[in-house]
Amino acid sequence: MGTPRTLSILGSTGSIGRSALDVVARFPERFRVVGLAAGQNVDLLEQQIRTFRPAVVAVARPEAASELAARLGREAPEILVGTEGACAVASLGEVEYVLAAIAGSAGMRPTAAAVRAGKVVGLANKESVVLAGEHLMAMARASGTPILPVDSEHSAIFQCLVGHHRQDVRRLVLTASGGPFREWSADRIRGATPAEALRHPNWEMGAKITIDSATLMNKGLEVIEARWLFDLPPERIAVLVHPESVVHSMVEYVDGSVVAQLGTPDMRGPIAFAMTWPGPRLPLDLPPLDLAQKGELRFEEPDLARFPALGLAYEALRAGGTAPAVVSGADEAAVEAFLGGRASFADIPAAVAHALERHAVREVGSVEEAIEASEEGKRLATSYLAARARAG
Amino acid sequence: MGTPRTLSILGSTGSIGRSALDVVARFPERFRVVGLAAGQNVDLLEQQIRTFRPAVVAVARPEAASELAARLGREAPEILVGTEGACAVASLGEVEYVLAAIAGSAGMRPTAAAVRAGKVVGLANKESVVLAGEHLMAMARASGTPILPVDSEHSAIFQCLVGHHRQDVRRLVLTASGGPFREWSADRIRGATPAEALRHPNWEMGAKITIDSATLMNKGLEVIEARWLFDLPPERIAVLVHPESVVHSMVEYVDGSVVAQLGTPDMRGPIAFAMTWPGPRLPLDLPPLDLAQKGELRFEEPDLARFPALGLAYEALRAGGTAPAVVSGADEAAVEAFLGGRASFADIPAAVAHALERHAVREVGSVEEAIEASEEGKRLATSYLAARARAG
Repeated sequence: MGTPRTLSILGSTGSIGRSALDVVARFPERFRVVGLAAGQNVDLLEQQIRTFRPAVVAVARPEAASELAARLGREAPEILVGTEGACAVASLGEVEYVLAAIAGSAGMRPTAAAVRAGKVVGLANKESVVLAGEHLMAMARASGTPILPVDSEHSAIFQCLVGHHRQDVRRLVLTASGGPFREWSADRIRGATPAEALRHPNWEMGAKITIDSATLMNKGLEVIEARWLFDLPPERIAVLVHPESVVHSMVEYVDGSVVAQLGTPDMRGPIAFAMTWPGPRLPLDLPPLDLAQKGELRFEEPDLARFPALGLAYEALRAGGTAPAVVSGADEAAVEAFLGGRASFADIPAAVAHALERHAVREVGSVEEAIEASEEGKRLATSYLAARARAG
Repeated sequence: MGTPRTLSILGSTGSIGRSALDVVARFPERFRVVGLAAGQNVDLLEQQIRTFRPAVVAVARPEAASELAARLGREAPEILVGTEGACAVASLGEVEYVLAAIAGSAGMRPTAAAVRAGKVVGLANKESVVLAGEHLMAMARASGTPILPVDSEHSAIFQCLVGHHRQDVRRLVLTASGGPFREWSADRIRGATPAEALRHPNWEMGAKITIDSATLMNKGLEVIEARWLFDLPPERIAVLVHPESVVHSMVEYVDGSVVAQLGTPDMRGPIAFAMTWPGPRLPLDLPPLDLAQKGELRFEEPDLARFPALGLAYEALRAGGTAPAVVSGADEAAVEAFLGGRASFADIPAAVAHALERHAVREVGSVEEAIEASEEGKRLATSYLAARARAG
C-alpha cells in the first residue's frame, strides 16, 4: 500500500466532495485528508472536520469561519477565508492530490492555484477548463501537473485512451442522457419549470449542472472541456444521446474500432479512479453493471433545434479565445435567473446566444482575463433577461 | 514506416486468410507476404501467389502441389505439402508474424510450430488453444512469443485490457450474437436444418464456425480460449447475448468500471490490429459505427437449456486436462455429420455430452496428446451418432 495519499478537497460539502469523502472513509489506509474548502454549509463541514481531521480548511465568508471556530473550539483546524483561503488549501505543501470540485466559475482560481503548485489535480470543476482551457493546460505542462478528469464522460474517455496510441484517435464521442426533456416538444420545453428541469433521469447532481443537463449546455461545456483535456479540435468531438447513461463515453480509432467505458451512474467511480491513478483501482462496493437486466441501450443524435445550447457551445469553441468563458458566465447567470423564477427555460439559451453575439472575442492571456470574460457573460445575460422581463 | 513486416498466413484461402490478404493489399508498403499455407482451393491459392509473390507455400495434398506447380510454371514458389509443409511455412526464418488461421484441430500443429519458432502469432485458430491452451501458453512464455488474439471477441478484450492493471480485472464478458435460433423454441431448435443454421445474423464466416455459433458451442470454445489467453479461471469469464454484435466484448474492473470494444462486424479490424500491434493502427476504410442509426443495443443472459453446448464447454474447462480437447473434437465430428445430413441439430450437443461423459480426463503433456484427445472426442461422437442412426 505504501503511505496514504495526501488530499485537499475543494468543494467538500458539494455532491462531488461528499462522494470523494465517502471513498476516503471506505479506504482510510489509502488517503489522508489535509485540506478542505467549502462554501456555506457549516453544519456539514463541521461534521467532515470531526471525521477527517484536516489540518487546514477554507470557507467562503468570515462569519462561517467564526461560527466554525466557535463550534470546534480546541479541535478547530486552521481556518482560512474566501477565494484566497481556497487557493491556499489548493496549494498546501504537504498535499499531493487536489480534487477541484468547487462548482462554477468560483472554482477557477483555486483550480489554477493547484495546477500552478504542481499538484495532481482531479478536475471536477469543468468551468475552469471552459474559461481558460488553453491557458490552464499550458500551466499544467509547465508545472508537470497531470490533470485527471473527474466528470464521468471525461473519465470514461481517459479510460478508453490509456494504452492506445494518441495518433490513432479519430474522434471522441461524449454521451448525453438527453435530460428530462429528451422526448418533449420544442413548445413544451420552452415553458418547462425549474421543478421539471431538476428531475434528471439518471444522475443525482447539484442544481446548476442538472439544469445544464436539461438544456444540454452541460454537454456543450463538456465538449469544450474535452477539447482542452484531450487536445482535439471541436470537429473531432461528437455528442450522442444515450438515455440510459450506461455508456459514459467512447473513443473511435482510425481503424473503426470503438472503445467505450460503461458503468452504473455513480460518481464514486470516476472520483476514485482519479484519486488512485496511475495506481490500481479501488474495489468499490458499487452495484455491478447488469446489462442483461437493463435489456437495451438506446442511442440517438442530439436535436440542436430543441436544444440550441449545445450548438452555442460548439460555436463558442470555434470562435475561441474568450467566447467559451462568456458562454459559461452567461449560462451561469441565466440558470440562476431560471431557478429564481426570473427567466423561462427558453430564456437560458436565448441569453447565452445574446451574450455570445454581443461579446467581442479576445485572447485569454491569464486566469484573470478568463474570469473577467465570464463576468462579462454574466452581465450580458443578466441585462438581456432584465430587458426581456421589462418588455414581458 | 520502416521495413515491411514479414508474414506467413496459415489458412490463406479461408475467410480470415482472405481478409488478412485484403489488408495487405491495401497497405502494400507495410507488409510482405513470405509464406502461405492453404488446403484444397488451388484456384484461389494460385491467384494469391500471383498477387502476393510468397517465397514458400504449403498445400494439404501432393495432387494440389503438382497442379499448382504446373499452373505457375517458372513463377511457382517453393511448394510444400501437408501438415509438415504448413509447419515449415509457420517457422520460416525470415518471417516475423504468423497468422494462424487454419480452421479446426488441423491448425494445432502449425500454430504450435509458429509459437515454438518464436514468431509473433496472430491467433485465429482457436482450436489450438482449446486443445492445448496451458501447454501452448507455456511454450509461448518459453520462446518469448506474444500470442495476439484475432477472434473479434478476444481482440476486443485485448483492446480493453491494454493500459489497465491486470490485477484490477474482475471478469471478462464475452458477447454472443445468440445465433439464428436465439428466439426459437427448444423444440424448433432441435429440428433445425443446416440451411437454417448457416444463416448467421451478423458475421460472414466459415461453415463450421457458423454452426458453432448456432449451437453457442463457438462461444463455449471462446470461453476456453479466453481462459488461457488471459489467464483467468472460468468463473471469471461470463457470456452475454447481444444480438447486434456491435459490442465485441468487455472487461469489468474491480471498481465497477466496464471497458468495452465496439465496431461494425468486419474481421479486418481485429486482423489488422494484431498484424500491426504494438504499433499504430491502420486507417482501415471500414464503415464507421453509427450507433444512432443502430438505435439500440440489446443484451440478455444466455439460455443454457436451449443451448446446452455452452454449458458443456464450461464443464470441460472445469474438468481440465484433456476434457476441452475432447469437446472440441466431438463437436468437430458432430458438426460435420450435421452438415452431411447424418445428424440432427440436437445431436450436436448430445454427441459432445456423450464424448465428455465417456472420456477419462488426462493431463495434456504435449501437443500430440492434445491432438490424440481431440481425435478420441471425434471417435466417441462419431460412434454415438452412428448408434443413434442405427437405433433411429
